[in-house]
Amino acid sequence: MTSPSRNPARLLPVDPTTRAVALDLYERVAGSPIISPHGHVPPSLLLDDEPYADPVALLVTGDHYVTRLLHAAGVDLADLVVDEAAGRDARTVWRTLAAHWHRFAGTASGYWIEEELDGVFGITTPLGPDTADAIYDEITAVLVRPEFRPRALFERFGIEFLATTDDPLDDLSEHAALAASGLPGRVVPTFRPDRYLDPDAVGFAGNVERLLAATGQPGDFAGYLGGLEDRRAHFIRHGAVSTDHGVEEVFTVDLDPAEGERLFQAVVAGSATAGERRAFRGHMLVQMARMSVADGLVMTIHPGVLRNHSSATHARFGPDTGHDIPVATEFTRGIRPLLERYGLEPDFHLVLFAVDETTSSRELAPLAGFYPSVYLGAPWWFLDAPDAIARHRAAVTETAGFYRSSGFIDDTRAFLSIPARHDTARRVDAGFLARLVVEGRVRMGAAERIMDDLVDAIPREVFKL
Amino acid sequence: MTSPSRNPARLLPVDPTTRAVALDLYERVAGSPIISPHGHVPPSLLLDDEPYADPVALLVTGDHYVTRLLHAAGVDLADLVVDEAAGRDARTVWRTLAAHWHRFAGTASGYWIEEELDGVFGITTPLGPDTADAIYDEITAVLVRPEFRPRALFERFGIEFLATTDDPLDDLSEHAALAASGLPGRVVPTFRPDRYLDPDAVGFAGNVERLLAATGQPGDFAGYLGGLEDRRAHFIRHGAVSTDHGVEEVFTVDLDPAEGERLFQAVVAGSATAGERRAFRGHMLVQMARMSVADGLVMTIHPGVLRNHSSATHARFGPDTGHDIPVATEFTRGIRPLLERYGLEPDFHLVLFAVDETTSSRELAPLAGFYPSVYLGAPWWFLDAPDAIARHRAAVTETAGFYRSSGFIDDTRAFLSIPARHDTARRVDAGFLARLVVEGRVRMGAAERIMDDLVDAIPREVFKL
Amino acid sequence: MTSPSRNPARLLPVDPTTRAVALDLYERVAGSPIISPHGHVPPSLLLDDEPYADPVALLVTGDHYVTRLLHAAGVDLADLVVDEAAGRDARTVWRTLAAHWHRFAGTASGYWIEEELDGVFGITTPLGPDTADAIYDEITAVLVRPEFRPRALFERFGIEFLATTDDPLDDLSEHAALAASGLPGRVVPTFRPDRYLDPDAVGFAGNVERLLAATGQPGDFAGYLGGLEDRRAHFIRHGAVSTDHGVEEVFTVDLDPAEGERLFQAVVAGSATAGERRAFRGHMLVQMARMSVADGLVMTIHPGVLRNHSSATHARFGPDTGHDIPVATEFTRGIRPLLERYGLEPDFHLVLFAVDETTSSRELAPLAGFYPSVYLGAPWWFLDAPDAIARHRAAVTETAGFYRSSGFIDDTRAFLSIPARHDTARRVDAGFLARLVVEGRVRMGAAERIMDDLVDAIPREVFKL
Repeated sequence: MTSPSRNPARLLPVDPTTRAVALDLYERVAGSPIISPHGHVPPSLLLDDEPYADPVALLVTGDHYVTRLLHAAGVDLADLVVDEAAGRDARTVWRTLAAHWHRFAGTASGYWIEEELDGVFGITTPLGPDTADAIYDEITAVLVRPEFRPRALFERFGIEFLATTDDPLDDLSEHAALAASGLPGRVVPTFRPDRYLDPDAVGFAGNVERLLAATGQPGDFAGYLGGLEDRRAHFIRHGAVSTDHGVEEVFTVDLDPAEGERLFQAVVAGSATAGERRAFRGHMLVQMARMSVADGLVMTIHPGVLRNHSSATHARFGPDTGHDIPVATEFTRGIRPLLERYGLEPDFHLVLFAVDETTSSRELAPLAGFYPSVYLGAPWWFLDAPDAIARHRAAVTETAGFYRSSGFIDDTRAFLSIPARHDTARRVDAGFLARLVVEGRVRMGAAERIMDDLVDAIPREVFKL
Repeated sequence: MTSPSRNPARLLPVDPTTRAVALDLYERVAGSPIISPHGHVPPSLLLDDEPYADPVALLVTGDHYVTRLLHAAGVDLADLVVDEAAGRDARTVWRTLAAHWHRFAGTASGYWIEEELDGVFGITTPLGPDTADAIYDEITAVLVRPEFRPRALFERFGIEFLATTDDPLDDLSEHAALAASGLPGRVVPTFRPDRYLDPDAVGFAGNVERLLAATGQPGDFAGYLGGLEDRRAHFIRHGAVSTDHGVEEVFTVDLDPAEGERLFQAVVAGSATAGERRAFRGHMLVQMARMSVADGLVMTIHPGVLRNHSSATHARFGPDTGHDIPVATEFTRGIRPLLERYGLEPDFHLVLFAVDETTSSRELAPLAGFYPSVYLGAPWWFLDAPDAIARHRAAVTETAGFYRSSGFIDDTRAFLSIPARHDTARRVDAGFLARLVVEGRVRMGAAERIMDDLVDAIPREVFKL
Repeated sequence: MTSPSRNPARLLPVDPTTRAVALDLYERVAGSPIISPHGHVPPSLLLDDEPYADPVALLVTGDHYVTRLLHAAGVDLADLVVDEAAGRDARTVWRTLAAHWHRFAGTASGYWIEEELDGVFGITTPLGPDTADAIYDEITAVLVRPEFRPRALFERFGIEFLATTDDPLDDLSEHAALAASGLPGRVVPTFRPDRYLDPDAVGFAGNVERLLAATGQPGDFAGYLGGLEDRRAHFIRHGAVSTDHGVEEVFTVDLDPAEGERLFQAVVAGSATAGERRAFRGHMLVQMARMSVADGLVMTIHPGVLRNHSSATHARFGPDTGHDIPVATEFTRGIRPLLERYGLEPDFHLVLFAVDETTSSRELAPLAGFYPSVYLGAPWWFLDAPDAIARHRAAVTETAGFYRSSGFIDDTRAFLSIPARHDTARRVDAGFLARLVVEGRVRMGAAERIMDDLVDAIPREVFKL
């Protein structure tokens, strides 16, 4: 049996009629430039352009999709950190991955990594205990070559637009340097102010203090809002097109200025009740919408994840290491105050993501199918996998069509996986469209236009590129 | 490429083996009369039998499935209203639809309208900016002909039974006139008392007052109930077979008469708290069940939609114009008090619809799979589309089989779409059954009987026709 | 048309390419021994080894999947109980089943029973009013033969491991006798303490009193915990590998010993508030986890079913007769206190089942994809049917792979259905894997290993066999 990634029709429907149509559609966009309007690649990766140290740095470290499943298999997260002093070199970690590789069969991560091994390194030998060392050596041998450095890969991947995610007080000097560096594509920051908006965030009061100091604003609510506006303007000057908001629940509330001032003083003083902190958090989303109406930044919300579910691993390994677990999410009532205020404003764009699939047909497609400001975020995090993407299209398209969706978002800090992720979405979308064609629901000409637009016109419109 | 609606196997599974079985099953019922036990076609349409004014009146005006998606595309809802004084003739509105037609690809509305253009007018040219005028002219040219008037279409569509939705105080004179008019099929009213049962409905107290006055009842709870019973009897005399209830949440509560009296006085006086108003609303569903047990009207509940989500468009354009958004729905606990009281009563029929797909396998199929009174409503509103119908069958059949479902309900005010909607359901059901046959799960003979029953015996039993 | 159960590829995907791969995978495990780590077969069935009385005792009595759907069809549950005095012999009940048999088409029960008629008795004639008597006679004629007694069937079914579900105070003498009886397979008890842990259970205080008396423990919280530990040890001595917990909601709470003592005294005295009873119940799940960490019993939770939804049928026919209805279930927040305390403990195994499909991709796969202690329970109760099993695999695999799932659990009191249920899961899993293979997502070699492990290595690991 040949490598699965050698199958040119991989991920496409197996029925021959449908597959032929799907291949036609896929091939239209297979080589199209990548537009990545939301993700977590650090700009330093592309600015410093250091060679990857080893296969572990390339494919394991920092990829919490991978580390979480190894942890579930009983591997201590510490054993995935290269630490020569502790006698744990990269090869040892790699062997751990290989020993558990069968556990990744059928997962999104397993598929992407096989795509990367094949697509970037030409390795089609199955990973496993017997092949771990040979594959390790094969990758290591080429990582030092110029064409495997991040900037060369960026070019090879055909990335035309890449948004990072950044702290509002970041001076964005790396982005400025990157913009001046001649990279063949735009890399822009994204304004992610959670820790300045959520009274329950670690160090919230200090964060606000630093914001006010950095922007020279007075210590009242108006000064706080002015400071945020000031930093948004800074981001816009550095090319930012959007703001991003990670919240556990979708809760928005419109308040009069006096109540805003009162809550602001209470949350900064640390005297606010849980209800007041929630109201402040919910009101700040409305304020962010107000600022987006004014300055044009696209607003994206990524809700519904309970962060750091395991306090013990959070204490040992910090955030973003695999212990974030989704919760049921409600949009219809929660987002209403924001939409009542700004939902019909011209040129306001609000992209709603979800990790709760039940909201797709029930809430998000109806909202995006009515409000001109609301766009359906692509399947996210636990859902950016072939079957989940297909379920998402099936759940939303009959109500909202294709033109209310955001286009694909990779949302990744695993730089090497970007092409595999976008290719996955293109293949699944081609397969979905092909089914509509062969079922007589969409004409081929219409399907071709949609396919083209999904990777180009649609993300450009949604993210105002 | 030929028109998609020219594909005789449209919507059927593409696998050749399955498609052949599906076609056999579909062809058994393709021409069967349409039974439409729930919908919103105004009786005056068939009584007056006026020719449609133009293609916009035919396919756009009043179809909030269409207008909502145009609104989402940035079209002001006012621009979809023909208004010669404002320089907006029907052709202009039609061109707006055509300019945005690509946005409807893959939607249920897009499919139905292409079915209607083809099935009613023989137009298979794709709609778009270049073809808008020609198609407009082609439709306009024939609309004046007798065979395109509503009654002629009613006959051509093979509608055998059509239920409208009506206010309890409607004198039903139009229904009486229709019944006497020789239309080849029954058109009957449906008792829809929401505005008389929900203390939060606009004008509730006045509505109750008018109800009491119209029925000569005293102003106490018993008089109020008597007034409702009186109007139900009036509806029954005009052929009604069911009552319909649109509620945001499924909440029912059984109260003793004294508490009912107390709440009634409070809600009429406008002094009831939110909790009391909720209790009253929830109790009135139980009272409606009691009356159904007594008078035999089938009770249908359409819950889980937050109406008029956008106050601004509601203020400008009124209800039912596209801004209703579903919310998560709970049935198991909420409907229990009603079922504890009446769920085992002989000949009581309660049809539960949902726009929250999660309830299908979790709550509705188990309820309908135990209570002889409970029937599974067909996929509704945002869910009466090919993929959603297929998901619904897959979600409920393994628990409840086919004989606990209601049969298809078009629930539409878009008269022209009725055949397309029923045909869609027949095709999807045929495809679903065909899969069970080719997977060796249902014998062909059993599938044939089920297919026949789905469009005939089942709706007749559920709605007591 | 031949019987559906004669189709050797039944339940497998119909596409020829996929079906061929699926058949290859299925045939690897078609004859593998059955491991059944959770179910409700009474041990006396195998100990007494009495012949089945008649076809009704075999296929109807006590199978609430069957009786509930007959009840929904309007059959009084009393009419399904053989009662010669009331003139209702088994043949009469059998004819009732046959008269309604078309209602079972497409249901899981309908499929299993056809599998049983064919697989056990070689009957492929469709059941119906015309064939009821002949089939009844054919089954009756052979039931007296030795090879149709329970122990012979146990051997013929290839059951290697079978767990029953038992009261903590059961002396397990039947299990001891069974173990000594030379049955070719292990039959072990499962510790199911709900009625001793839930203050709202019928007779709770008396149950606790009997527990303390039986174990010679004092009447305080420590004595109560000691009594439970004592009975768990008794179960372990009789081969038990797991405890099982049926709760309406997933709610866990960690309490200090003093608060535990206080709540214990209150719930035993009957003076506890609803909140206190809930806290006690939630705390006892944490205590059960603590005991599992200590004694190694696997902990399984079956949550989310509202029992005895219909008080009237419960009063007439008792529990477990078809009137249990699922409710929406939340795991992420509810199970967190338990996992914060014990989720990272070595060798702690917690298997989470669900009847709410929405939790699969949203909560269960992420939890099992991070915590080494958490395993994804197989689709359960209303969901152990072909389409639901396929949806479950699709919902969880992309996040958690195959190795975080529990392996199939039949959970049945219908002994005769055990092979049909396991065969169903094997076929659906083979079909699911085959699709991943033909879509180029999993290599055939990997799929073969997974297929083998799903019916052997995985349940052995999860249930520590």
